[in-house]
Amino acid sequence: MEKQFVAQIADIESDFPQWYTDVVVKTKLVDYGPVKGTMVIRPYGYAIWENIQNEFNTRFQAANYENAYFPLLIPMSFMTKEAEHVEGFAPEVAVVTHAGGEKLQEPLCVRPTSETIIGTMFGKWVESWRDLPVRMNQWANVMRWEKTTRPFLRTSEFLWQEGHSVFATAEEAEEETQKMLSVYEEFAKTCLAMPVLTGLKTEKEKFAGAVATYGMEAMMHDGKSLQSGTSHYLGQNFSKAFDIKFTDKDGAQKYGYTMSFGVSTRLIGAIIMTHGDQRGLVLPPVVAPVQAVIVPIAMKKEGVLEACEALSARLKAAGIRVKIDDSDNSPGWKFNEWEMKGVPIRIELGPRDIEAGKMLVCRRDTLEKQEIELKNAEIKIEALLDEISENMYKRAKARMNDRIVDAETLEELLDGVNKGNFVRAGWCGCRACEDKVKEFAQATSRVMDKKHTAKTCVTCGKQAKHTVFFARAY
Amino acid sequence: MEKQFVAQIADIESDFPQWYTDVVVKTKLVDYGPVKGTMVIRPYGYAIWENIQNEFNTRFQAANYENAYFPLLIPMSFMTKEAEHVEGFAPEVAVVTHAGGEKLQEPLCVRPTSETIIGTMFGKWVESWRDLPVRMNQWANVMRWEKTTRPFLRTSEFLWQEGHSVFATAEEAEEETQKMLSVYEEFAKTCLAMPVLTGLKTEKEKFAGAVATYGMEAMMHDGKSLQSGTSHYLGQNFSKAFDIKFTDKDGAQKYGYTMSFGVSTRLIGAIIMTHGDQRGLVLPPVVAPVQAVIVPIAMKKEGVLEACEALSARLKAAGIRVKIDDSDNSPGWKFNEWEMKGVPIRIELGPRDIEAGKMLVCRRDTLEKQEIELKNAEIKIEALLDEISENMYKRAKARMNDRIVDAETLEELLDGVNKGNFVRAGWCGCRACEDKVKEFAQATSRVMDKKHTAKTCVTCGKQAKHTVFFARAY
Repeated sequence: MEKQFVAQIADIESDFPQWYTDVVVKTKLVDYGPVKGTMVIRPYGYAIWENIQNEFNTRFQAANYENAYFPLLIPMSFMTKEAEHVEGFAPEVAVVTHAGGEKLQEPLCVRPTSETIIGTMFGKWVESWRDLPVRMNQWANVMRWEKTTRPFLRTSEFLWQEGHSVFATAEEAEEETQKMLSVYEEFAKTCLAMPVLTGLKTEKEKFAGAVATYGMEAMMHDGKSLQSGTSHYLGQNFSKAFDIKFTDKDGAQKYGYTMSFGVSTRLIGAIIMTHGDQRGLVLPPVVAPVQAVIVPIAMKKEGVLEACEALSARLKAAGIRVKIDDSDNSPGWKFNEWEMKGVPIRIELGPRDIEAGKMLVCRRDTLEKQEIELKNAEIKIEALLDEISENMYKRAKARMNDRIVDAETLEELLDGVNKGNFVRAGWCGCRACEDKVKEFAQATSRVMDKKHTAKTCVTCGKQAKHTVFFARAY
Repeated sequence: MEKQFVAQIADIESDFPQWYTDVVVKTKLVDYGPVKGTMVIRPYGYAIWENIQNEFNTRFQAANYENAYFPLLIPMSFMTKEAEHVEGFAPEVAVVTHAGGEKLQEPLCVRPTSETIIGTMFGKWVESWRDLPVRMNQWANVMRWEKTTRPFLRTSEFLWQEGHSVFATAEEAEEETQKMLSVYEEFAKTCLAMPVLTGLKTEKEKFAGAVATYGMEAMMHDGKSLQSGTSHYLGQNFSKAFDIKFTDKDGAQKYGYTMSFGVSTRLIGAIIMTHGDQRGLVLPPVVAPVQAVIVPIAMKKEGVLEACEALSARLKAAGIRVKIDDSDNSPGWKFNEWEMKGVPIRIELGPRDIEAGKMLVCRRDTLEKQEIELKNAEIKIEALLDEISENMYKRAKARMNDRIVDAETLEELLDGVNKGNFVRAGWCGCRACEDKVKEFAQATSRVMDKKHTAKTCVTCGKQAKHTVFFARAY
């Protein structure tokens, strides 16, 4: 039966795209929506998103962000107020032209991002230095019409959070941009057990309308990088376009400095492709919808289900997300199903275990089994969840580190990305050399290394201004 | 200073619409969006919505609902599969005709409600009786293009939850429809301190496509009724349109029975207009973003802020949402501002209080003040929050009961609604008589009374089939 189950998922090494599709669909994380490029986030996937939201809300609140909600529809004329912004997003927007049975006077965009509409409101609300800083966050759906789509990774509609702030000075706004990037990095480590590379993006890869974009990149199982979060310093580009002005302490009218940052349901794709294996999902304990599943053995025997329920109640009381699988399927079937669904801990409890005051505990990350005394269930399971998180991070970190190589020539760079690596290489800073890398190796600059160690540009051989991580990317 | 503050809000008795606008804008619950009919939900308003969400999530989970997320855009052809449904919603939909720089082959509706798209997915997922019942809930934005709009009450875009279920039998689906209505009623009482009338809607007032709609109506300060939640029994209308079929235990293919239910950000409008007074908002403790505000007296004096912070930490640890107002404004200004913002409890703490081990506590609902010993802060504040909830409910319930009158003729009915009442009257059951009430008294049937006591139809004088609550309504 185990083989049957495993066979339903394509081979992770030889056909990763099909493996991904099999995993997301068969574990019921997601299904395809009827409109091309859309997804339905099913309860098992949405529960991960809710856990992600809760973890971020705690962090954003600590960073003085307040949640709010801004309208979905943005007048086309707003988009055009910031020249680079409209250039970047106009080709991707969905447009409402008719409503209430009539043609609209002005077409309305379905938000691809909300700098323009939030900027408009900030322009209305901010009057004095006393009103600053403003820090708001929105959880919302956004829409970007994409040609090639894949669930979680790139869909026409997706869910995300977007944080938006206004400061009196450039320094504060820049500092906030880096601070929120570090919040993302800490979140990725703590909650997703996911190591990332962070750093400045090149001009070519930055957000449309930003002065500077910082990105967080994660290495996927197939050797491709996934942009998993971005934080943008917007300077005065949007404050000037949307008249976000304040009277400073000296009585002068000044434009504010803004920044924004966002992560999306793409993070669920990142989890899948960072930790997944041939058996399916391996979910990080902090965001797993079910942290421990109890599989009753010889379920019909007297006292078994009762013991499972007693254990479940104790674990729940300790704050652990636990589920009893009391379905009619065989234990073997259940083992496979919950392994596929990536539940961090499986607990087997049968008559002999109960008599011995023990339970058999199997961890998803290593598939190791151990006997644990029932009386210590809460402490041991809690500790094991932490241990699994740490081990998953350590393992992913080692994998990522193994996938960082250096290159001094385009050939070396090509070889490196062909093997599925982040290739660290020098760059002179000119756009032509960056374009050449893309052309030669089908790789893009992901982020610049904070430590500038490279001597020469991988393309032109002139002095390197930056050390860049290049990779193939989603 | 107090007078100044109060004067900023229009008179609640003589100009209720302006009072409402003043309150929602000045307390920063909401602002007008740039597109006509849209609103921006500001942090203070959104925090109420988050509390509403949390309370409902607990209740829905207990009722075996799982959260999920379905696409925003619905192909126009889906809408037309259920004849009554499209007739009801087509005039209000916003339509995306262009995306990604191209004209779409088929126009897409921005969801006004999701029966059609969720029905499509349920049709795909449900195969056997083992898959039933299906119970899902979605928190989402929806759009209905309205001519006359007002923040929270009627806006082109609003936030809501929509629950959708499939059952094997009509009985189960009908029972669920009433059960979820009772969840709404309990929520309104417990969390919003809001009494409601619940019951069946007439054919004329039911949801487009439903077999039967049950509604929850609340009496607002100005004597108008606000529909605050609905639960629809959909029979097989949608299962037939969207092919939600299952193989039953007997091996036969059968259509499922579906139901749906929803509440929206309109509930925030209901809170405002149920409890508000001349000073502004009066927020029910369960959903108030700030449950207790601490105003330091003689703030600059040594030890005052420290004592406020110590008290705040203790209340927070007890699970109370507390805030210290340490702004530069005078205490009097702060009192007025937090009264306007409807915070249930204000705590004043100054040097003399600290010395005496006491704090002065003022409740928003009655404006009564009392001294409470600091050492009992947690228990006393918790108890007071409960007491405020109960008192607000009792008061609103008495007001509602005072506004229920009986009528046997159209003239009596007109007089009753002119005075801002729910008018209980007999109805023969025919559409013409219901229309006549609208024409004669500008009132609509809200819900049918569960107790049928009326003898004759208020319009035609024939035997009454139902006893109906009529009212002017939002």
